[in-house]
Amino acid sequence: MTSVTTSVPTTVRWVYAFGGGSADGGAQMKDLLGGKGANLAEMSSLGLPVPPGFTITTQACNHFYAQGRSYPADLRGQVDAALKRVEALVGKGFGDAANPLLVSVRSGARASMPGMMDTVLNLGLNDRTVEGLATLAGDRRFAFDSYRRFIQMYSNVVLGLDHHVFEEILDDRKDVLGVAVDTALSADDWRGIVDQYKSEVERELGHPFPQDPQEQLWGAVGAVFDSWMNDRAQFYRRLHDIPEAWGTAVNIQSMVFGNMGDTSATGVAFTRNPSTGENRLYGEFLINAQGEDVVAGIRTPQSLTRASREEMGETSLSMEEAMPTVYEEFRETVGRLERHYRDMQDIEFTVERGRLYMLQTRNGKRTAKAALKVAVDMANEGLISRDEAVLRVDPASLDQLLHPTIDPDAERKVIATGLPASPGAATGKIVFTAEAAEREGAVEPVILVRDETSPEDIRGMDAARGIVTARGGMTSHAAVVARGMGRPCVSGAGELAIDAAAGEMRARGRVWRAGDIITIDGSLGEILAGATAMIEPELSGDFGVLMAWADSVRRLKVRANAETPLDARTARQFGAEGIGLVRTEHMFFDEVRLAAVREMILADDEAGRRAPLERILPMQRGDFVELLKIMDGYPVTFRLLDPPLHEFLPHSEADVAAVAKSTGLDAAKLLRRAAELRETNPMLGHRGCRLGVSYPEIYEMQVRAIIEAACEVAAGGLAAPRPEIMHPLVAKAEEMDFLRALTDRVAKQVMAERGVTIDYSVGAMIELPRAALCADGLARSAEFFSFGTNDLTQTTFGISRDDSGRFLNAYLAKGIFEKDPFVSIDVEGVGALVRLGAERGRAVRPDVKLGICGEHGGDPATIAFCESVGLDYVSCSAYRVPIARLAAAHAALNARKV
Amino acid sequence: MTSVTTSVPTTVRWVYAFGGGSADGGAQMKDLLGGKGANLAEMSSLGLPVPPGFTITTQACNHFYAQGRSYPADLRGQVDAALKRVEALVGKGFGDAANPLLVSVRSGARASMPGMMDTVLNLGLNDRTVEGLATLAGDRRFAFDSYRRFIQMYSNVVLGLDHHVFEEILDDRKDVLGVAVDTALSADDWRGIVDQYKSEVERELGHPFPQDPQEQLWGAVGAVFDSWMNDRAQFYRRLHDIPEAWGTAVNIQSMVFGNMGDTSATGVAFTRNPSTGENRLYGEFLINAQGEDVVAGIRTPQSLTRASREEMGETSLSMEEAMPTVYEEFRETVGRLERHYRDMQDIEFTVERGRLYMLQTRNGKRTAKAALKVAVDMANEGLISRDEAVLRVDPASLDQLLHPTIDPDAERKVIATGLPASPGAATGKIVFTAEAAEREGAVEPVILVRDETSPEDIRGMDAARGIVTARGGMTSHAAVVARGMGRPCVSGAGELAIDAAAGEMRARGRVWRAGDIITIDGSLGEILAGATAMIEPELSGDFGVLMAWADSVRRLKVRANAETPLDARTARQFGAEGIGLVRTEHMFFDEVRLAAVREMILADDEAGRRAPLERILPMQRGDFVELLKIMDGYPVTFRLLDPPLHEFLPHSEADVAAVAKSTGLDAAKLLRRAAELRETNPMLGHRGCRLGVSYPEIYEMQVRAIIEAACEVAAGGLAAPRPEIMHPLVAKAEEMDFLRALTDRVAKQVMAERGVTIDYSVGAMIELPRAALCADGLARSAEFFSFGTNDLTQTTFGISRDDSGRFLNAYLAKGIFEKDPFVSIDVEGVGALVRLGAERGRAVRPDVKLGICGEHGGDPATIAFCESVGLDYVSCSAYRVPIARLAAAHAALNARKV
Repeated sequence: MTSVTTSVPTTVRWVYAFGGGSADGGAQMKDLLGGKGANLAEMSSLGLPVPPGFTITTQACNHFYAQGRSYPADLRGQVDAALKRVEALVGKGFGDAANPLLVSVRSGARASMPGMMDTVLNLGLNDRTVEGLATLAGDRRFAFDSYRRFIQMYSNVVLGLDHHVFEEILDDRKDVLGVAVDTALSADDWRGIVDQYKSEVERELGHPFPQDPQEQLWGAVGAVFDSWMNDRAQFYRRLHDIPEAWGTAVNIQSMVFGNMGDTSATGVAFTRNPSTGENRLYGEFLINAQGEDVVAGIRTPQSLTRASREEMGETSLSMEEAMPTVYEEFRETVGRLERHYRDMQDIEFTVERGRLYMLQTRNGKRTAKAALKVAVDMANEGLISRDEAVLRVDPASLDQLLHPTIDPDAERKVIATGLPASPGAATGKIVFTAEAAEREGAVEPVILVRDETSPEDIRGMDAARGIVTARGGMTSHAAVVARGMGRPCVSGAGELAIDAAAGEMRARGRVWRAGDIITIDGSLGEILAGATAMIEPELSGDFGVLMAWADSVRRLKVRANAETPLDARTARQFGAEGIGLVRTEHMFFDEVRLAAVREMILADDEAGRRAPLERILPMQRGDFVELLKIMDGYPVTFRLLDPPLHEFLPHSEADVAAVAKSTGLDAAKLLRRAAELRETNPMLGHRGCRLGVSYPEIYEMQVRAIIEAACEVAAGGLAAPRPEIMHPLVAKAEEMDFLRALTDRVAKQVMAERGVTIDYSVGAMIELPRAALCADGLARSAEFFSFGTNDLTQTTFGISRDDSGRFLNAYLAKGIFEKDPFVSIDVEGVGALVRLGAERGRAVRPDVKLGICGEHGGDPATIAFCESVGLDYVSCSAYRVPIARLAAAHAALNARKV
Repeated sequence: MTSVTTSVPTTVRWVYAFGGGSADGGAQMKDLLGGKGANLAEMSSLGLPVPPGFTITTQACNHFYAQGRSYPADLRGQVDAALKRVEALVGKGFGDAANPLLVSVRSGARASMPGMMDTVLNLGLNDRTVEGLATLAGDRRFAFDSYRRFIQMYSNVVLGLDHHVFEEILDDRKDVLGVAVDTALSADDWRGIVDQYKSEVERELGHPFPQDPQEQLWGAVGAVFDSWMNDRAQFYRRLHDIPEAWGTAVNIQSMVFGNMGDTSATGVAFTRNPSTGENRLYGEFLINAQGEDVVAGIRTPQSLTRASREEMGETSLSMEEAMPTVYEEFRETVGRLERHYRDMQDIEFTVERGRLYMLQTRNGKRTAKAALKVAVDMANEGLISRDEAVLRVDPASLDQLLHPTIDPDAERKVIATGLPASPGAATGKIVFTAEAAEREGAVEPVILVRDETSPEDIRGMDAARGIVTARGGMTSHAAVVARGMGRPCVSGAGELAIDAAAGEMRARGRVWRAGDIITIDGSLGEILAGATAMIEPELSGDFGVLMAWADSVRRLKVRANAETPLDARTARQFGAEGIGLVRTEHMFFDEVRLAAVREMILADDEAGRRAPLERILPMQRGDFVELLKIMDGYPVTFRLLDPPLHEFLPHSEADVAAVAKSTGLDAAKLLRRAAELRETNPMLGHRGCRLGVSYPEIYEMQVRAIIEAACEVAAGGLAAPRPEIMHPLVAKAEEMDFLRALTDRVAKQVMAERGVTIDYSVGAMIELPRAALCADGLARSAEFFSFGTNDLTQTTFGISRDDSGRFLNAYLAKGIFEKDPFVSIDVEGVGALVRLGAERGRAVRPDVKLGICGEHGGDPATIAFCESVGLDYVSCSAYRVPIARLAAAHAALNARKV
């Protein structure tokens, strides 16, 4: 390697122009221009009707934060030049009283963060330009309505005033005038309101509302940059794994108006249905409205197509019917965009006096079901390859498909109906505030019921099992966010009269209170009384096709963690290629066995322990026979007894008395033994293979049960069983040697007794830092390693999962943790140990089989890490097996790219 | 590096001969020949009178164990040849009925393991050769006494019979004959006893006592090899860190007899006094006795020199007086040996009918006091260098010197007196069995009182604070082992009548029972009633000289862990160069402060916490001022609050009620908060810097107290204070960044307020695996790392120190752990993390200061490891500072050698 000198450009380009049939940037420049800016540039270059404007780069944002919130020195000059170009293209002047250019100022990060960031519209209006706008538009009412909107947004976003003060002024004025709706207000009414707004700003801030458009512009740019660090944005980034270092761009674009009368409109569209994936134009629009009106849910929008209107049973005309010429142009344009981007597009548009303007395009968010269908369809249409189709579906999103839906035969006591905003079903207690959802949702399932949701509610939405809103459409905040989170959602259920303060809602003459149980069906848009029977989703059709494509490219095997025959069968049904973790002690909690286990724990010596172990042996063997049969030749990893013995004893005096009475065991002895076994830190106590070393007879019984079970299965003419015997919590090579010798001794004995040879293997669960660090020593006796990343995370971080709740949230909130390390592997620390363990193990035993088990096994980011380390398999809960299969395919495809 | 092919010799030499003025081996071959064998060879080569013999190598022992307890194929031939050489040199035949060669068979490992291994004397005797011996010796009684001794030893050591059966036969016979002492038995009496012994053996084993000398010889060789793995040997090895892989050699040597009448004798000697180090021949001998009689403590031995006899007030003649010619030869010989070996020698010798034989020499074990004096004297005599003198003193042995002794002004209620067998003083409850010592010694101090001790008692001796025996001399088992362990010991206290079964002892007309408190003075040989005032040892003279030499060569700095002014002053007195760990929370347990701390914990919000913190601030500041003053410019590392908050709350309802009553705090709230804060695994819970992140106001107060204290000290005109502010339990770089910012912010504020600049630094306690793995990230904000190896061991191994008692002993017993990892650092695992942490920290911040604190900081093996990693300092408890200083010097000197 030779050292490379980075050449520093003498001037940095902070500003990229677009519009007028050309652009400085393009779709590939998302890192620098943000998604919105890059796509505006791309659309401009494609010759589509984009209002001219320019983008201030994310690099400028990073400079802003790196330099104590100050702008690059040469930014202002570049903005001035770009603004001049816009003025030239649209033939208006920024601040020109007679012919004013108005602009929007919007954030735009590399990844879409809906509703998280702040936007200012109609910027450039002041007491003088508003008159010019009135003249130009020939509509004084429109001009003053725009001005008051501007003052309200700017004051809120840039000046930090609460939007409620403006809403109160407006409501009071309407009361005084005796009107109910905004449309009944005249130009002069709006003018009066503008005056009141300005007075209010001056009263609150001690200085007047800024009249200088340049001051307005730089205030707005600063507010967009500032918004990158607000709480909502930080929380959203954490939820979606978006690095803070990406920064946001600022898009400044000449305004077009969808609210200039009945030949004007504004709308949003998806090139395919984002809920189902159906290949049909889908969306909503509003005539004579500004863009924010559609998503705000204040007016109920209309369909784009006649077919859709008819299906929904709506009476107001669709765009196809109301503006057929513009609709046709729009249809052709969005079709071209989908083919150009080779993906389903989410589009914002405005029609200003019969003229179409494209304001945004981006790859559309979609439900998992839609993602599957779109990916499979597009591959079948030849638009993308099968590998691309596999990569188009987010593995984590499959969770939605694997959730239960309402049993079609179940009785449905419908409380109210709304829009099918996000598919799936959920049951839970009603809560009326995001705070209650956060608090109570941590304990039991809740359904969040709100008039409408806002970005402030996002934590509560995440904590709820489902979301209901009384207002808003299919693209309302609640609907968009719920789909993204995979939560079922019913939006716009206008029948509901919600009184959050009183803690109740009314519908169809009945009252429902906070705490009442309801069920929602997000696929049908229904809210049902009580809990309802659910059924498992059918995993076929597009799912089966895509999973087959995924399986054909992945390298990592996927196994499941399973103890019961039901788990094991579910795992096979979801495509598991073996069991990666049988927690053998789970079978000890059955009542009959528990009595024997307790008798063993109370015994004074080895002989006293052996008698109850003899009774447990045939039961364990029976369980193991069944698991091996279900797995039909796939490997099954049996982890020997792991938890400390006190977990099997009653603790309180009352419990002890009850157990003593029912089992005939000596109460005093039970109590004494429970006290003797009590531990200060059970996580770090007498557990795992330490039990096998202290009481070898326990592990001997378990090894015997496993090998006897395998002999029985082998004798039954089924596929040869492949038991893997795993010793938990190993720390030292000498420990593993001891356990290996114990295992082989018993296995040989059983095989000799039965006259059957079993292809078993012996391995170590690597769940202590020392085991990973000294894996070379362990590998001399261990034929496989399974990384137990749950415990490995606990010990590497010194964090007890049981106790972490008290501080982990503070750590996430302060940004010290980007992600919960118990959900997604900490690559830097825990991952370093996994990598070390794998390398050192292979150094001694090149064919040592390597896998991970535990919660992380079903996490896509962790799976990508496992691919990078070259593990052989991951093992996760049965329901996450499909996610793991797809994530493994992603990991393999992404690894090829590098 | 090129690969080297090891040439395999066609024949391995398993046997090395010695005697007759030459030898195959030498002193440098201890690894192969064991200490005894190597020194016998060396003495032979020096021309000293060594009975001829040969050594079977440790390599043969290792072969024996590696090959399932079988001998190398060519061993027998080599032994036969060596035996022939011995026969030729002494002019006798092995098994020759007329002129029998008798041999001793002794173990001999690389390190001395007194009493741990088995020995057989007089081998070669049978019904025929005993007659030959009788004729040769002209003493039939001697011959049959030797034969019965041989049958007894051989049956016990090789054939596994209990020696009590032989003692019973002897006692019965003496009763029948009406004699009290062995010397009253005639040749025929012994012959009759021999017949009874042989019958008993045949009865017990079903076959006769072996008459074939070859069979006897190989039986004995096998028994010596077997003894390497017996429980006593394993325990001793563990106690003294002797690897099992060393193996033992077997020494076969022609017998000489100290029991052939009054011109024969046997004895042991030290070239200098092993208790005091005084440069004077020291030892004991017995006329007409075999070697075992001296150490067994059955007869009380005589002094070697007249001066010693006179000092001890003995009447029986010294060797110097009884055999002046042989004594003179002996004196010259041992002087020559000391000069040759350049160290104090421990010698065994026998005089057979006026002729001196040297049976063993080795570097003598000695008390710490003696080791110091011998080392300093020899350096001053020019026999060794100062560096060698430093290396001659085992750092761990200094512990003996640092223990308290009895206050000379205290009243001494003497119960009984004995020999001053091992220096130092101790107080404890009387126990009469090793088992009781083990059991009760774990809970409170005990003194083990026995008639005599044997290797089976070694665990009990280790568990006791001091040892008393009624029988045995200065070189009895009790005395040797107690000195090695650093336990005070009074041996041979013949006044005591001990009835262990009844649990009492009598002396001077009084009865003392198990559980009564006594004090022993091992330096004077006194046993005192009750507990007695103790005083600290004076650290001057030889100690001061040697420590100065040590300080001049060591590189590692040594600090102390100290919270109180007393600790801090003690630390300075012992030479600490700063405080490596102030556990700031220790100051919270004072009653007044605890009330404020509890009020803080009960507070509902930050404001509620700040009020009590304000009250704690001046108290903490006051503590810190004092510590900084005592340390007078040396660095002081303040670790901020570490334990979980629940440690400061009462837990049981009764405790809560008491606290509520005395403090006026709300009992219900106390109880609720204690329940809220309870943790499943407190070790891995909400503690360490997690408290500082959750409640920054706590750490802010502590930082303020530290910097304010430093300002106060700086203003007082003392040496500039050097506070180091340490954040515990750090795991992530982002966490350290947050804490660094907090610390600097408060420090800057305080320095501005006071107008003083303090040279403070901010660092991390590295006590989690992740911190070590990601130390590069931490180093961007941390100016120093202190490895907290206590917690690092807990998390690396996943072992809670509080709970490890249940299985750690089983692990030590099974050899899975060689040493307790909480006492001496686990170099392979925990050490690997320390090394990684140091390397990665230095990669980012080359001058990052590195130290370790915690129990390991005073452990010599750990200190050697710290030297190898290049840490800057170690920190340990005040009393271990001298040990650490000397260990650091050893580490530096040993590092130079490599």
